[in-house]
Amino acid sequence: MITLTAYSWVPPIVRGLVRDLRVRWALEEAGLPYRVELIDLQNKPDDYRDWQPWSQVPAYEEDGLRLFESGAIVLHIAEKSPALAPQDPAAKARMTCWLFAALNSVEPPMQELALLDFMHADKEWAKVRRPMIVEFVQRRLKGLADALAGREFLEGGFSAADLVMASVLRMAKLTNLVAEAGLADYLGRCEGRPAFQKALAGQLADFKDAA
Amino acid sequence: MITLTAYSWVPPIVRGLVRDLRVRWALEEAGLPYRVELIDLQNKPDDYRDWQPWSQVPAYEEDGLRLFESGAIVLHIAEKSPALAPQDPAAKARMTCWLFAALNSVEPPMQELALLDFMHADKEWAKVRRPMIVEFVQRRLKGLADALAGREFLEGGFSAADLVMASVLRMAKLTNLVAEAGLADYLGRCEGRPAFQKALAGQLADFKDAA
Repeated sequence: MITLTAYSWVPPIVRGLVRDLRVRWALEEAGLPYRVELIDLQNKPDDYRDWQPWSQVPAYEEDGLRLFESGAIVLHIAEKSPALAPQDPAAKARMTCWLFAALNSVEPPMQELALLDFMHADKEWAKVRRPMIVEFVQRRLKGLADALAGREFLEGGFSAADLVMASVLRMAKLTNLVAEAGLADYLGRCEGRPAFQKALAGQLADFKDAA
Repeated sequence: MITLTAYSWVPPIVRGLVRDLRVRWALEEAGLPYRVELIDLQNKPDDYRDWQPWSQVPAYEEDGLRLFESGAIVLHIAEKSPALAPQDPAAKARMTCWLFAALNSVEPPMQELALLDFMHADKEWAKVRRPMIVEFVQRRLKGLADALAGREFLEGGFSAADLVMASVLRMAKLTNLVAEAGLADYLGRCEGRPAFQKALAGQLADFKDAA
């Protein structure tokens, strides 16, 4: 049996963006059953840090194996499921490059932009910094759009790389940057998957004040 | 034969930090021969973007397989070499969590701090932002130090996770944060490895104005 952790409550602005969504989505794509262990954001269990060193979600357990970091967990699931990774070793290696690209080259500027827009929009320092980070995000999205030109997904069919990349693109939800880069169709293809919709509904329903 | 790309020149402040160092280090640990293709930072080949979508270094080629993203390349090398990964599947999965943690949870705040200190130290917005990012880095380093308590390396012996984590810790070189977190011995153990010293000397010697 697989267990993953998620928060029982987060502020509305980040609902649908919390990183357990990536793991839920991967498990839905792979067709693997799982249970969710809800963690109180403001009152975490004392020993949770032994499982997740930053005391964040998601953490993951499978037959006694405890994992953390959404990227590592999604890659672990992809190694068990042809629904998330090409089987040809060269294609799988290229897919893994894109998964790292999403996490290490696209997510950092996206995360900084989200932080500015969600938390610091009214601060003077953020107004000076923001145009620099927008330009950085735009360069990354242009690189992604160029690589995707004429292709439906990053490497062959839908894979873990698209799952993580789409999750990262969603962080710019208060801006029009994804559409301006010509990536709306790509993001729509990923978000339109039944496994994503099921995972998203699962995250949203698990918040204690869910409608 | 393995080829990787590196820059023929970068500003002195980032020498010893450019990400091809991670790949050189991994190849030295694995004992795999390689050649370096130098890229002019200010005049990149037109088709380089086909190999590396952000037009950065490192890019990697091995028997026609072209890879990018330092994390993906190091993990690819680790999959071929017991010098960089435990052979037990559970230990390897935990090692992979730490590799992603270095890249996705520790490097983003480290990178932002380095950007502030290397490029914007005199700007008013950076002076307001800096204490927030220092506090974020400190929290991450505390999580890392707690996880390392009583251990030499992140998962068993030295692995790709330590290689990437140490590379990330080196980015705080203008601060005392690593030592204050009790991580100087850990970083010293990693930097003291002959393979690291050889990789570092290689990067520094390849700059066209190297002494």
